[in-house]
Amino acid sequence: MSNGLRARQASGGDMEKERETLQAWKERVGQELDRVVAFWMEHSHDQEHGGFFTCLSREGRVYDDLKYVWLQGRQVWMYCRLYRTFQRFHHSQLLNAAKAGGEFLLRYARLAPPGKKCAFVLTRDGRPVKVQRTIFSECFYTMAMNELWRATGEVRYQTEAVEMMDQIVHWVREDASGLGRPQLQGAPTAEPMAVPMMLLNLVEQLGEADEELAGKYTELGDWCARRILQHVQRDGQAVLENVSEDGKELSGCLGRQQNPGHALEAGWFLLRHCIRKGDPELRAHVVDKFLLLPFRSGWDPDHGGLFYFQDADDFCPTQLEWAMKLWWPHSEAMIAFLMGYSESGDPVLLRLFYQVAEYTFRQFRDPEYGEWFGYLSREGKVALSIKGGPFKGCFHVPRCLAMCEELLGALLS
Amino acid sequence: MSNGLRARQASGGDMEKERETLQAWKERVGQELDRVVAFWMEHSHDQEHGGFFTCLSREGRVYDDLKYVWLQGRQVWMYCRLYRTFQRFHHSQLLNAAKAGGEFLLRYARLAPPGKKCAFVLTRDGRPVKVQRTIFSECFYTMAMNELWRATGEVRYQTEAVEMMDQIVHWVREDASGLGRPQLQGAPTAEPMAVPMMLLNLVEQLGEADEELAGKYTELGDWCARRILQHVQRDGQAVLENVSEDGKELSGCLGRQQNPGHALEAGWFLLRHCIRKGDPELRAHVVDKFLLLPFRSGWDPDHGGLFYFQDADDFCPTQLEWAMKLWWPHSEAMIAFLMGYSESGDPVLLRLFYQVAEYTFRQFRDPEYGEWFGYLSREGKVALSIKGGPFKGCFHVPRCLAMCEELLGALLS
Repeated sequence: MSNGLRARQASGGDMEKERETLQAWKERVGQELDRVVAFWMEHSHDQEHGGFFTCLSREGRVYDDLKYVWLQGRQVWMYCRLYRTFQRFHHSQLLNAAKAGGEFLLRYARLAPPGKKCAFVLTRDGRPVKVQRTIFSECFYTMAMNELWRATGEVRYQTEAVEMMDQIVHWVREDASGLGRPQLQGAPTAEPMAVPMMLLNLVEQLGEADEELAGKYTELGDWCARRILQHVQRDGQAVLENVSEDGKELSGCLGRQQNPGHALEAGWFLLRHCIRKGDPELRAHVVDKFLLLPFRSGWDPDHGGLFYFQDADDFCPTQLEWAMKLWWPHSEAMIAFLMGYSESGDPVLLRLFYQVAEYTFRQFRDPEYGEWFGYLSREGKVALSIKGGPFKGCFHVPRCLAMCEELLGALLS
Repeated sequence: MSNGLRARQASGGDMEKERETLQAWKERVGQELDRVVAFWMEHSHDQEHGGFFTCLSREGRVYDDLKYVWLQGRQVWMYCRLYRTFQRFHHSQLLNAAKAGGEFLLRYARLAPPGKKCAFVLTRDGRPVKVQRTIFSECFYTMAMNELWRATGEVRYQTEAVEMMDQIVHWVREDASGLGRPQLQGAPTAEPMAVPMMLLNLVEQLGEADEELAGKYTELGDWCARRILQHVQRDGQAVLENVSEDGKELSGCLGRQQNPGHALEAGWFLLRHCIRKGDPELRAHVVDKFLLLPFRSGWDPDHGGLFYFQDADDFCPTQLEWAMKLWWPHSEAMIAFLMGYSESGDPVLLRLFYQVAEYTFRQFRDPEYGEWFGYLSREGKVALSIKGGPFKGCFHVPRCLAMCEELLGALLS
């Protein structure tokens, strides 16, 4: 993992300066991780019903008590991960909150057990409010259960994770009818990049230090990587969010849609895949197409920051928020560039990490109340003061900070 | 309709000046209406399949050829209305385009005829792409068919309109199961204000100069008005977008959601109801709660313009576009204030009309390519350069301009 420093063509003095910069960033992300985790621990735990409040104002006030299943699963996952892998987070308060969140999911997430379909959002006490006809609630449920097993050793969590994974794979690769989407004659058989991305993420999650499951999912991981790579279109000049199942560009806005932050996230998922495979050729391709290309097209030359949506033919996107700067594309970009540098040693990637991290820490952090703002205007002003909401919980920010702390530690060691 | 000028407590000189201002606005909106209609006639007609392209760039280029059923129905309605009620639009080009749009809807809008459920969006050649589990595609279908009947005299259109109306009323008042929404234990039985608003609009549309249908729908119109009035909550201090079916505030963000432009639109729907009923007491209530109150809370004191969403407890809304300035709340506000003034003669309402109209003409018009921009930033900069898209077609702008031209004409006569 310390290819980066070794590969630098730099004098001893430069190298020393680089070490200091890396060390300073390591301390900065570590301290920020502490503050962010403290925010969620202080404001988000539902002591009565278990699970987490995620609709939190700037100051941490609960402005809605709905429980979004994606965010419940993600927070359980995050807490367990921190508990397992960071000495300073290895304390019972974090683990107990994760367990209470996991029990809430076990009891309430599924709409009609033993059926596997999960709700998208639940009331505070666990009654279903909305369902999405996608796989994502179930994916975050799986991530939560697998981490809970790793953190507690309780096998029932792992059983739940593996059974849900089998169901998800069935929906994606064999028969999607259980998701309840109507078959419409004019609907294109579009593949959103999120689907193979999410599955690849689960393959890594379930296969971690688990030879049996890693083996079981090898072919699936390769399939996911191939499907993600199919989203590189137009002679390698664009990553498109939606393509046909056989890898062709789709017509209209749907086909031309780009999401630079999402491509960068896919980039680091693929980098991890390359590490597992030991495939430096694929790694170079991924760096080129999923890191450098989306950054070039997606970084706002006027105000900094990554645009949320773009159109591959430079039409104006129809998403009202297309030019806003959202927190998660930036946290994903930080991970992607730092991981890319760690693996390749290419100093261009380290400079991009610094560029993104400086923008991100300057614009998104809230030094007053902790956690990050999620939604800035194109110019970088806070557009929504919320710290959490239906799509922002305890996940992208701490995952980014924890992974960057680890990557920086490895580079420095 | 000329209560306004009669009621002004003004000297002869002031009155003359007021007339001049009104006359200038009448000319301004009339000329703008011509330019807007010209934009749609030039760029939106699909000569091959019938119906309309609505995904149009700033210059009028088609950037997607999907056909959104709301917007197909609205454009048919608008063209017929202009053809019927404005001498200068009484030409065959407009009527033929409306008929081609109507035939496209008749042939393709319904998913499984004789079932009434319509698609939300179709391919250019009419294959269904998406369905919404709401009544709105069907409502705009009904508006289109009723106006087509009025414009052409062909009874088959009216049969279609009345049968669809019966179906919509059945879904709203008797049994919504045909819409396909899942029954979930935690889902609140929320009434979005749009539902009784849309129905009240249809009651007016179908009952216009039609004693039989006006009589048939009298009770329904009263029911709609009562249901809309139930959205005035918190001792008359807020219009809330969603309430329970028995008129109670709902919990969380859903319950606290406000949309000032939507309240203003409901305001003029209710003013028309008051005119039909001859009910000046209700009119005063409507002016107070649906015109003045949303304007006071919704007008941005810093940059002008109406916010899109607000939270009744002043939490930050979770909609990313909450502070953006959209075209349609402003066109609805122009109608509401001018109609309110016409009916009540209250000069406060006329001043508000001028304030909104000046902001709107200054910020939304595109003097270069015609039509209006739809989406501005909080500060009033063009955020999306599109002239049409999935939710913006040939409707709110020309409806506003046509109604204002008529209202101003009546005030001046």
